[in-house]
Amino acid sequence: MPFTRIAVRAGKPVAYRQALTQGIQRSLVEVFNVPADDIFMAVTEHDEGNFVYDKQYLGVHRSDDLVMIQITVSNTRTVEMKKALFKRIAEHLAESPGVRPEDVLVNLVDVPKENWSFGNGIAQYAV
Amino acid sequence: MPFTRIAVRAGKPVAYRQALTQGIQRSLVEVFNVPADDIFMAVTEHDEGNFVYDKQYLGVHRSDDLVMIQITVSNTRTVEMKKALFKRIAEHLAESPGVRPEDVLVNLVDVPKENWSFGNGIAQYAV
Amino acid sequence: MPFTRIAVRAGKPVAYRQALTQGIQRSLVEVFNVPADDIFMAVTEHDEGNFVYDKQYLGVHRSDDLVMIQITVSNTRTVEMKKALFKRIAEHLAESPGVRPEDVLVNLVDVPKENWSFGNGIAQYAV
Repeated sequence: MPFTRIAVRAGKPVAYRQALTQGIQRSLVEVFNVPADDIFMAVTEHDEGNFVYDKQYLGVHRSDDLVMIQITVSNTRTVEMKKALFKRIAEHLAESPGVRPEDVLVNLVDVPKENWSFGNGIAQYAV
Repeated sequence: MPFTRIAVRAGKPVAYRQALTQGIQRSLVEVFNVPADDIFMAVTEHDEGNFVYDKQYLGVHRSDDLVMIQITVSNTRTVEMKKALFKRIAEHLAESPGVRPEDVLVNLVDVPKENWSFGNGIAQYAV
Repeated sequence: MPFTRIAVRAGKPVAYRQALTQGIQRSLVEVFNVPADDIFMAVTEHDEGNFVYDKQYLGVHRSDDLVMIQITVSNTRTVEMKKALFKRIAEHLAESPGVRPEDVLVNLVDVPKENWSFGNGIAQYAV
């Protein structure tokens, strides 16, 4: 059920972007108990003028390899689970495709469970 | 007031994408009581590596014709209205441009009414 | 902490798009008390078929210069602050790059403070 949008600078190889989506998905499975096959993500690639970030906000030294990840997800996770997810995503993306932890930005958007339809016009999660 | 982001695989004709936005808008008008001229949508087209989905999550058989629809809308709709919206969107997109119901993914993001400005620097919906 | 997505018609010069992001950021700093170096934005450029809007909804006369701005932000702002932000963004973008106030659409998405990681796998705003 998460729907994930990922913004990166243009020019990364397909394998690099696939490793990003796989690492994020693995983290969602491990920490948020998302089913492994519950994966829906869209990546946008941006030229310099369309990708704006600060290189040191909060003392974190970012580069053009920054990955801006916005995950819309049902509102059933605790603060501790959210903290664990951020940590896990940074770890997985450091392993592959080799993103520096400083370059991993994550934002969660929580929505009620009835806000999803995974096809066939049905709200599969609504009770 | 809805603001809708639609992600599709690259390569669909303009008329196809126009039919998508029109079918979604018609559904919002019919089910969510959105004014017919209250339409704001942005479509992004994605190559294979930037468009990630599972082909059978929840037993729904998806194809590369999948349409990932994210609608940000004021938080005034009931669960029944949300269910009806998902059904109606699948029906309209099946008629035109002919999307299989399995290939229609919808996610709603609810926001308070004061979170919108439709121009002129005014929060037109704030009481 | 805001994460801002900006959708515009394709073809605007880089300087124009930079003025958009700078004007929005200045408004966030002045009205929402966002730190000046807390800036994270992604711009998408759209061809005509992928950029859908009404030219007169609510009596506001929009053109192809419309800027659709979606700002995800922590849920700590009052209605009055939101109203002031919309006003300020329209003012700044009118000054530079010279967008008509009618062509400034803004939508806010509120999230809890623990929903952000600005790098290093840490939820910097979680208490």
